[in-house]
Amino acid sequence: MKPLRVLLFDVFGTLVDWRSSLIEIAETAATRARVHADWAGVVDDWRRAYQPAMDRVRQGASWRDLDSLQRETLADVLARRGISLPAADRETLVSGWRRLRPWPDSRAGLDRLRRKHVTATLSNGHVALLADLLKFADLRVDAVLSAQLAAGYKPDAQVYLTALRLLDCPAEDAGMVAAHASDLDAAAALGIRPIFVRRPLEWGHGARPAGPPAHDGVLETDGLIELAEALGC
Amino acid sequence: MKPLRVLLFDVFGTLVDWRSSLIEIAETAATRARVHADWAGVVDDWRRAYQPAMDRVRQGASWRDLDSLQRETLADVLARRGISLPAADRETLVSGWRRLRPWPDSRAGLDRLRRKHVTATLSNGHVALLADLLKFADLRVDAVLSAQLAAGYKPDAQVYLTALRLLDCPAEDAGMVAAHASDLDAAAALGIRPIFVRRPLEWGHGARPAGPPAHDGVLETDGLIELAEALGC
Repeated sequence: MKPLRVLLFDVFGTLVDWRSSLIEIAETAATRARVHADWAGVVDDWRRAYQPAMDRVRQGASWRDLDSLQRETLADVLARRGISLPAADRETLVSGWRRLRPWPDSRAGLDRLRRKHVTATLSNGHVALLADLLKFADLRVDAVLSAQLAAGYKPDAQVYLTALRLLDCPAEDAGMVAAHASDLDAAAALGIRPIFVRRPLEWGHGARPAGPPAHDGVLETDGLIELAEALGC
Repeated sequence: MKPLRVLLFDVFGTLVDWRSSLIEIAETAATRARVHADWAGVVDDWRRAYQPAMDRVRQGASWRDLDSLQRETLADVLARRGISLPAADRETLVSGWRRLRPWPDSRAGLDRLRRKHVTATLSNGHVALLADLLKFADLRVDAVLSAQLAAGYKPDAQVYLTALRLLDCPAEDAGMVAAHASDLDAAAALGIRPIFVRRPLEWGHGARPAGPPAHDGVLETDGLIELAEALGC
């Protein structure tokens, strides 16, 4: 395998555990507000509304950031479930995407991978959100790149191409690290090496884990330490 | 003084000592190539050609990155001085901008300032260069921002405004940290708080140090540790 110079990392689900973090944030806010609900169900519905909301932006005329989309989809999810949560608590949930816990291997794995690679996020979160989240989770990368810099959302090709341009890197010298096949399919179509990280708990215990993309040449790992070992870091 | 949420940092001269680093890189390459010259003079001329080269891009139609400008101005400087340096050694000098030593207080100062602020570079270096340089110098910031993201160069207003937009920060909640008055003048004109860091050795011993900008409200410091103390970090 040809050595890679650049590693791009998906963030939500790949580096950080959005689900258990958001459920805890929601339950804490709800207890304070004395609102009872199935918060795990709310968080799952909210997350399911995420890609369709981005797809609407991708097809629309003007780009909007993730805070704005999440605020809207959260209001929809709560309304559908008949849950009345005060505005301040809804904002606590929206800003909760900046306080997500990393998976246990993310910090040390990124540090090892930085030794031999230029590492960068490539997330649908906007730069301001990512800066806060990486600080909260104490995750260090060499560059904080976002779909925002292409005024798009993954899996738009332009998002990956903008990252390659900013890092001055040909596609074949870059890897995309993600726990989701759609992200890796889009990257691989441009010649970026797809690296699948299994995150079996992304949707909680008992949920069926996401599988790797179907095509050839996918490097599969169980986490970033294993990936660092596979890449000789 | 109102607390600042975001601190933007100039890089060349403010965080890293370009002059002594480049002189050493040039002397090492020249010794290998057996080319004798006044390398301190070359480096100083080269650095003086930097802002005019960027100004030509600012007035021109299409943006080009710093490597491309530096390659051109280095060739000019060497030709003017009648120095013949092999192409590979000229490239060593151009890529030398990615191997500049930090000032002694930069690393620890940035780490302290990150505790209470979102920190970001705001440099005329492009993202790929900054990612390499920050890794080499082991400097950690929350976001790697560059004039490239505005397809411009400082002191274009658009460069500062793009950084504020990406960090979702009103001008009055941000500070610009730099060792150069022109950078701070441009930032202050937009309502960003100017923070002057004295770097008396930027142009070497015996050179007259750069002074702070002339207008009111400039915070002046002797380095990033002193700045962290002034800001209560």
